[in-house]
Amino acid sequence: MSNTFRTKKRVEFGDTDMAGIAHFSNFFRYMEIAETDFLHARGLSVSGVFNGLKIGFPRVAVACDFMRPARFEDVLDIDVTIEEIGRKSIRYRFNFSRDGKELAVGRITAVCCRTTADHGMESMEIPEDMRRRLEGK
Amino acid sequence: MSNTFRTKKRVEFGDTDMAGIAHFSNFFRYMEIAETDFLHARGLSVSGVFNGLKIGFPRVAVACDFMRPARFEDVLDIDVTIEEIGRKSIRYRFNFSRDGKELAVGRITAVCCRTTADHGMESMEIPEDMRRRLEGK
Amino acid sequence: MSNTFRTKKRVEFGDTDMAGIAHFSNFFRYMEIAETDFLHARGLSVSGVFNGLKIGFPRVAVACDFMRPARFEDVLDIDVTIEEIGRKSIRYRFNFSRDGKELAVGRITAVCCRTTADHGMESMEIPEDMRRRLEGK
Amino acid sequence: MSNTFRTKKRVEFGDTDMAGIAHFSNFFRYMEIAETDFLHARGLSVSGVFNGLKIGFPRVAVACDFMRPARFEDVLDIDVTIEEIGRKSIRYRFNFSRDGKELAVGRITAVCCRTTADHGMESMEIPEDMRRRLEGK
Repeated sequence: MSNTFRTKKRVEFGDTDMAGIAHFSNFFRYMEIAETDFLHARGLSVSGVFNGLKIGFPRVAVACDFMRPARFEDVLDIDVTIEEIGRKSIRYRFNFSRDGKELAVGRITAVCCRTTADHGMESMEIPEDMRRRLEGK
Repeated sequence: MSNTFRTKKRVEFGDTDMAGIAHFSNFFRYMEIAETDFLHARGLSVSGVFNGLKIGFPRVAVACDFMRPARFEDVLDIDVTIEEIGRKSIRYRFNFSRDGKELAVGRITAVCCRTTADHGMESMEIPEDMRRRLEGK
Repeated sequence: MSNTFRTKKRVEFGDTDMAGIAHFSNFFRYMEIAETDFLHARGLSVSGVFNGLKIGFPRVAVACDFMRPARFEDVLDIDVTIEEIGRKSIRYRFNFSRDGKELAVGRITAVCCRTTADHGMESMEIPEDMRRRLEGK
Repeated sequence: MSNTFRTKKRVEFGDTDMAGIAHFSNFFRYMEIAETDFLHARGLSVSGVFNGLKIGFPRVAVACDFMRPARFEDVLDIDVTIEEIGRKSIRYRFNFSRDGKELAVGRITAVCCRTTADHGMESMEIPEDMRRRLEGK
């Protein structure tokens, strides 16, 4: 299985701003939606119980470069690639395009955490079988 | 103390849509922000621990009528009124205006609930001292 | 063609709030997305050029009643029904359900407007061929 | 006048997610709100008419690093600094803290553009008097 996964996202009316384009903050929402699609395709979830542990992936670093605007009713292609899996963290890259033209490139680095009894988060190693699924093996 | 409370909210760039006005869904966010301001002014919170119970106010009915649009950088006056306090529920009215001109009238009906051990919600009577604070007594 | 149209919407992580459920304001975004799906299915758009006129549908009244919460990764069924088409306005009803259980019922009343030269909006009669498409004829 | 400007932003209920913290995408909305506060303090606006030209600042690169989560009702201090003003672009840094503890550091690079007749955007040099105001001179 290739490490790249493609999904699609339509720009909604409520995503636009008075400049007539998708507000830049929505690209981060689109990335997260694409991440959910990706995880589902690999039998995982961004937030759920895995082998009895309540695991989440809080974000520690995110970024996006914008080349071209996206407009209402555009259907964006989003290519999800895992750029790096560390012991406890994962870095995704998201390539946004429309009709083959590049619109934006985003990145999210997230850390594997278990929820503690007092609703806190504690980083942990990515479980081995989760890692294998993430890597598409 | 009067039953009406006034607060202000600026329309942000990210709140606008491609029609150049505040997207209608944001009026519900503004209502919730005004509710938080109101509750703070009365020593309460929309979600928190009250007399040892974890209490929240999930919404059961909301509505908004729109008379005039709001635009980027407008500072809206929001008048918060409690229209009715029942045994377990409360209905707020929110009057939005700018320079004395009415923009919108919204309503939120919320039910007092305690969080149960399994993260569910169970309706309960509004505690007597919370009710007194809500009524501004 | 029946007057009811069904579409689906997944609850995203960013749609949830600290109560662990989809924030109520997002149901209005879901309604608008369902409206866009509905209009596309009938060859129309919520904002676009129709017979040479730039036409939009600003909302004048919206409401939602909530029966059960929606949670992350829930896929909601949304049934879109036109409750009434007036000369210049249209009222939609949106029935939200999951696995056949009713979650919420929302309504949006929108007015047909043309954009004027100075970026204002002016109400107008719904064009006859647009009306026929809306009615599914 | 110093090049750093401090403003405040409260975390609203609707900004939180099911992890009980402010959803990361909202930090970009907070940055934009802080930018608006900053521009107002210098007699400017993020989108408006300046010397007869309709000028906007579309974003070309944004990023945020997260150190600690922000929670409902937290009042965040946001320090806005201009890291660089180029001929046509400007890079802001936003330092988020609460009670002196650093929560996040964000950056936005925006390009000065005029709106063209067909609603497009065309980059242009930052007008000299706008530059002086941005620099706090």
